[in-house]
Amino acid sequence: MMFFASDNGGPVHPSVIEALTEANEGYTGGYGADDVTARAVAAVREVFEAPEAAVYFVATGTAANALALATYAQPFHTVFCTDTAHIHEDECNAPEFYTGGAKLTLVPTTDGRMTAEDLRRVIAGEETRGVHGPQRGPVSITQITERGTIYALDDLRGLCAVAKEYDLPVHLDGARFANALVELGCSSAEMTWKAGVDVVSFGGTKNGLMGAEAVVFFDPEKAWEFELRRKRGGHLFSKQRYLAAQFLPYLEGGRWLDLARAANASRQRLQDAMEGMNDITFAYAPSGNMMFPTMRVADHRRLFDAGAYYYMWDGDLDGAAEDDRLTARLVCDWSMSDAALDKFLTVLRG
Amino acid sequence: MMFFASDNGGPVHPSVIEALTEANEGYTGGYGADDVTARAVAAVREVFEAPEAAVYFVATGTAANALALATYAQPFHTVFCTDTAHIHEDECNAPEFYTGGAKLTLVPTTDGRMTAEDLRRVIAGEETRGVHGPQRGPVSITQITERGTIYALDDLRGLCAVAKEYDLPVHLDGARFANALVELGCSSAEMTWKAGVDVVSFGGTKNGLMGAEAVVFFDPEKAWEFELRRKRGGHLFSKQRYLAAQFLPYLEGGRWLDLARAANASRQRLQDAMEGMNDITFAYAPSGNMMFPTMRVADHRRLFDAGAYYYMWDGDLDGAAEDDRLTARLVCDWSMSDAALDKFLTVLRG
Amino acid sequence: MMFFASDNGGPVHPSVIEALTEANEGYTGGYGADDVTARAVAAVREVFEAPEAAVYFVATGTAANALALATYAQPFHTVFCTDTAHIHEDECNAPEFYTGGAKLTLVPTTDGRMTAEDLRRVIAGEETRGVHGPQRGPVSITQITERGTIYALDDLRGLCAVAKEYDLPVHLDGARFANALVELGCSSAEMTWKAGVDVVSFGGTKNGLMGAEAVVFFDPEKAWEFELRRKRGGHLFSKQRYLAAQFLPYLEGGRWLDLARAANASRQRLQDAMEGMNDITFAYAPSGNMMFPTMRVADHRRLFDAGAYYYMWDGDLDGAAEDDRLTARLVCDWSMSDAALDKFLTVLRG
Amino acid sequence: MMFFASDNGGPVHPSVIEALTEANEGYTGGYGADDVTARAVAAVREVFEAPEAAVYFVATGTAANALALATYAQPFHTVFCTDTAHIHEDECNAPEFYTGGAKLTLVPTTDGRMTAEDLRRVIAGEETRGVHGPQRGPVSITQITERGTIYALDDLRGLCAVAKEYDLPVHLDGARFANALVELGCSSAEMTWKAGVDVVSFGGTKNGLMGAEAVVFFDPEKAWEFELRRKRGGHLFSKQRYLAAQFLPYLEGGRWLDLARAANASRQRLQDAMEGMNDITFAYAPSGNMMFPTMRVADHRRLFDAGAYYYMWDGDLDGAAEDDRLTARLVCDWSMSDAALDKFLTVLRG
Repeated sequence: MMFFASDNGGPVHPSVIEALTEANEGYTGGYGADDVTARAVAAVREVFEAPEAAVYFVATGTAANALALATYAQPFHTVFCTDTAHIHEDECNAPEFYTGGAKLTLVPTTDGRMTAEDLRRVIAGEETRGVHGPQRGPVSITQITERGTIYALDDLRGLCAVAKEYDLPVHLDGARFANALVELGCSSAEMTWKAGVDVVSFGGTKNGLMGAEAVVFFDPEKAWEFELRRKRGGHLFSKQRYLAAQFLPYLEGGRWLDLARAANASRQRLQDAMEGMNDITFAYAPSGNMMFPTMRVADHRRLFDAGAYYYMWDGDLDGAAEDDRLTARLVCDWSMSDAALDKFLTVLRG
Repeated sequence: MMFFASDNGGPVHPSVIEALTEANEGYTGGYGADDVTARAVAAVREVFEAPEAAVYFVATGTAANALALATYAQPFHTVFCTDTAHIHEDECNAPEFYTGGAKLTLVPTTDGRMTAEDLRRVIAGEETRGVHGPQRGPVSITQITERGTIYALDDLRGLCAVAKEYDLPVHLDGARFANALVELGCSSAEMTWKAGVDVVSFGGTKNGLMGAEAVVFFDPEKAWEFELRRKRGGHLFSKQRYLAAQFLPYLEGGRWLDLARAANASRQRLQDAMEGMNDITFAYAPSGNMMFPTMRVADHRRLFDAGAYYYMWDGDLDGAAEDDRLTARLVCDWSMSDAALDKFLTVLRG
Repeated sequence: MMFFASDNGGPVHPSVIEALTEANEGYTGGYGADDVTARAVAAVREVFEAPEAAVYFVATGTAANALALATYAQPFHTVFCTDTAHIHEDECNAPEFYTGGAKLTLVPTTDGRMTAEDLRRVIAGEETRGVHGPQRGPVSITQITERGTIYALDDLRGLCAVAKEYDLPVHLDGARFANALVELGCSSAEMTWKAGVDVVSFGGTKNGLMGAEAVVFFDPEKAWEFELRRKRGGHLFSKQRYLAAQFLPYLEGGRWLDLARAANASRQRLQDAMEGMNDITFAYAPSGNMMFPTMRVADHRRLFDAGAYYYMWDGDLDGAAEDDRLTARLVCDWSMSDAALDKFLTVLRG
Repeated sequence: MMFFASDNGGPVHPSVIEALTEANEGYTGGYGADDVTARAVAAVREVFEAPEAAVYFVATGTAANALALATYAQPFHTVFCTDTAHIHEDECNAPEFYTGGAKLTLVPTTDGRMTAEDLRRVIAGEETRGVHGPQRGPVSITQITERGTIYALDDLRGLCAVAKEYDLPVHLDGARFANALVELGCSSAEMTWKAGVDVVSFGGTKNGLMGAEAVVFFDPEKAWEFELRRKRGGHLFSKQRYLAAQFLPYLEGGRWLDLARAANASRQRLQDAMEGMNDITFAYAPSGNMMFPTMRVADHRRLFDAGAYYYMWDGDLDGAAEDDRLTARLVCDWSMSDAALDKFLTVLRG
């Protein structure tokens, strides 16, 4: 199946189902007071080389982001993020809801990434109105961005440094954390606390889990407040072992990195073949597991007719001329088969 | 294992794991646009004989309750519920959070159940202050109550009738819906919309699911608002098939009722044996899958020493005299083994 | 005019209008950056013998209470107050709104006052559910209570001591602060911070001001947060001098105490005359400027026919028998004339 | 005094104090149940030629705006306004607070005014994400804008028409309503409901009142909800006659228009003199009672040295060179004296 609509449409990795089966033995305490949760917390800490970190599991990325931000942002704050951030565009005001009415101040971007200069300028701009304007709150960075682009380690350090100039906490939305990490070839610690990140939404759902994300606070000072906010948000699972269990095979032996590598490799393979084919160009530099190829309408039509699934990014095929060029969003998950990639490319070639 | 601490501590039914495995094939649309979700919705509608009902899946009972209430309660409303309701005592202000600051007005109870008279008196009391006091909002009823007691159908109809006198919507917190239903021997429709219930939190997690509840609106008028509130609460699952899939084997062939019968039968077996044993009395009339036996401290100590798990309800064993009598909360889930029940009773007998 | 419906129905003291006229000269900074505000703040600090206190002016008692509580209560807290508190009964969920969804836990009362024992029992009861229940938040005490009763200094100290046992901040709703103070014959400091109060809503509107209350934090630690919450609540006045100016003549030379003494004396005069008249009894021990006499329906009818204004407290005259006895709420403000009191008593005598 | 810092720094019109004095007679019902309020409501309705309009008085513009928006915007909506709107920049997240977490989506402007085209483009852009993004909520228009510019009637009609294309309600922030009205020379009805406005924050405070704004709903359908939201926001005045009384002399005989004409004339007089003087230019086309002249640093210094009050708009005098050019914001209220204007111009001339 030529499915490139999202990395949430494919199956979960079989090891996750096995882990759930294994976890499904006997009786345990509820709400996280169980051994599976303890082992998953330990595994996450190890991944981040952060033995003191407070680690919490929730089921959705929106919950992870909104709860993490609410723990750091007061209702009279504004959160700094890009104009393409998931927390701004795709969470139906969850951050505003969870923070009790904080604002999001948008940093403009061209490819989903903000620059340190733009961030500083925007933060500086929120300064002159005393009690009248919102107060500066956390900076939220998305890695990989919603345009598939990736901040280099130096970029991340630069953004965190700007936040620290203003004494602001830094949140990292890592829904596609693994896909970035394997591309950068650095450690999880380097991409987070060593760069200046205070709390990370450590995504798993888009990388082979069933529905599980970890929120990792490198400074556990806010831990208890987070627990209360999670509970009142309805995000504390009574049978938490099944949430936590998903992380055990995921982190074991670096499987999570293998899954991300597989997804990225599928994207790379598509990209390699598409470069030079049919005058295709790319709206943003492809990286990680996402790409935005601009193609002729005729190409799109042929692909859809052949059963490909993906989202049109910048316009509608209806009524478009055959020679018009429109951009697609293609996302690869860990499970892409060679056959599916081959078929896609064959159809595209025409 | 003699585990009576909660019905969230045991394993999920094996058919649920199988259903997850089955659902784990190929690619589907996200956020509920998948066939598994469609089938689960249809199954829930059939159970409730409500082909027009709006059915939504969430992962926790707190989410189900708070979202259902927020859809019906304005921030300037008060929700009527008992003084023992889960929404009041055990959700860390989730209803207040999701409604944007509505209040809960408590109806007093002696065994977890409110009477129609008390409900009417309390509703009537919230009347005289015009714009100054909160306005009357939904009535929330818990079936089975937090004390293990069950409203008869006539009780439910009576409570709903009081709500309708005041033109108030009715929410049913059915975290243990199945356990009540098999005890009453009525249909799901009779226990809900035929009695006057507008929206039900149809629990599955406490009855063998991994973490899945359905919110069922019998009038779909509020459906879209619910969807938006679910999303901004972070409760819309991207890979929703794994949430919905849990309901397929659960509802198939009445398995959910079998599971509840098994749990209730375990409670009944304990009760039958304990009546007349060791001067044991019951704080509330045992029913469903919960009981609150009052036992001598010596009995408690023996049970705990033998490895039993349950919560003390009204006091602490530490420092209590052997002859003091304290109440336990014992909850049975679907998975109780004869061996565990036998061992518990043997130890208790002394 | 025989007006006993409320202490918000009479005229403001003429000195207040004069102060507004005086303040109405020339140009000043906005939002409190003016000399009138500075002088009013100084005057309030002097009244409370609290030179470091943070003092803020708002226009309504509901704003004062809700903002003060929101500064101390987190959304996952519960506020402890009586079942008759204005914040519970008469603010249309303002505390729930301003705190972002905190709960109010009610301490039962018989005459509007809670006892230290009841407060301790209720606070202790909110303890056993960890993350599941709300966390303990501020204690809010009302002086004079909504039943016209007054806590003795020892009562206040006792309630504050219970709060401090649990390390909880104490809010005093002083909508009728002055009426209590002159009755107790103590200092403002003794009735607040010396007793253990952390923040007081220092009422002026019910005692001769046009619409002005001061929120006084004895520990200024929360000052900036309060300022932000006041602004986003829409309670920061641009032309604040007119809010602050009201307090200048009010506090000058103890006029505020004279006004309260006048109001209390009117109540006392009514009480003295009514005791023994027409078998009148009192639902609560009259004190301050409020009383709740229980009178024959015939007496009520005669009074209303003669043009008296007051609220029936426990029932409706319509359809009542002449010999039935119903309770009225009579409130005196500073402006009651001897003629009005005489006429009321003459009519009542029959 | 050369005070051009804001139109909230000057005295209130003497007739307002007189009206307060007159209103200060005898006893009335509280919370708006008084004759003064009834007369003021009638006067506002007459001004707007809207006999069915629901009219409410509050004390601040932030309260008026936030409450009006909260009545029309659900928590999952986004409000469309300009990037310079007071509700976005100067209310410390009050709209986000009062709506329970709605978002503000910003329409870019160059001189404070948005175009219909930009508004349509931005509204259209909030369309493609179904449940994921916020839903479209009210459009909020500011007249006079924060840059002193004024929408022509056709502009207003065009913006409202775009809102209606999408079936969105329209709010008008009329903090300086009168200043625009006299400039346009149209009726209040033409500038509001005849153009398509659903609710207006009808400002009085910046035009000679002490602290009073009216919220006018042309369709009274939302009236009761507004009343409840006003109360729980702490904005319902018990002694409301003093809020309402301010509007009586204000609206009587068109005094409010005279006051606005006076303010605008002062601005015009400054402008006329400054055009051509000292190479002064204007950042935005001056109109209403506000202007943003760009002047040499030396001019600014001379003015400040002479005691002028105004805000620097785009930079700091500290460290600036004498020949640099910086922009000031000058605001005139109704009370500007010829002497003050003359002195200002004399000093400026150098």
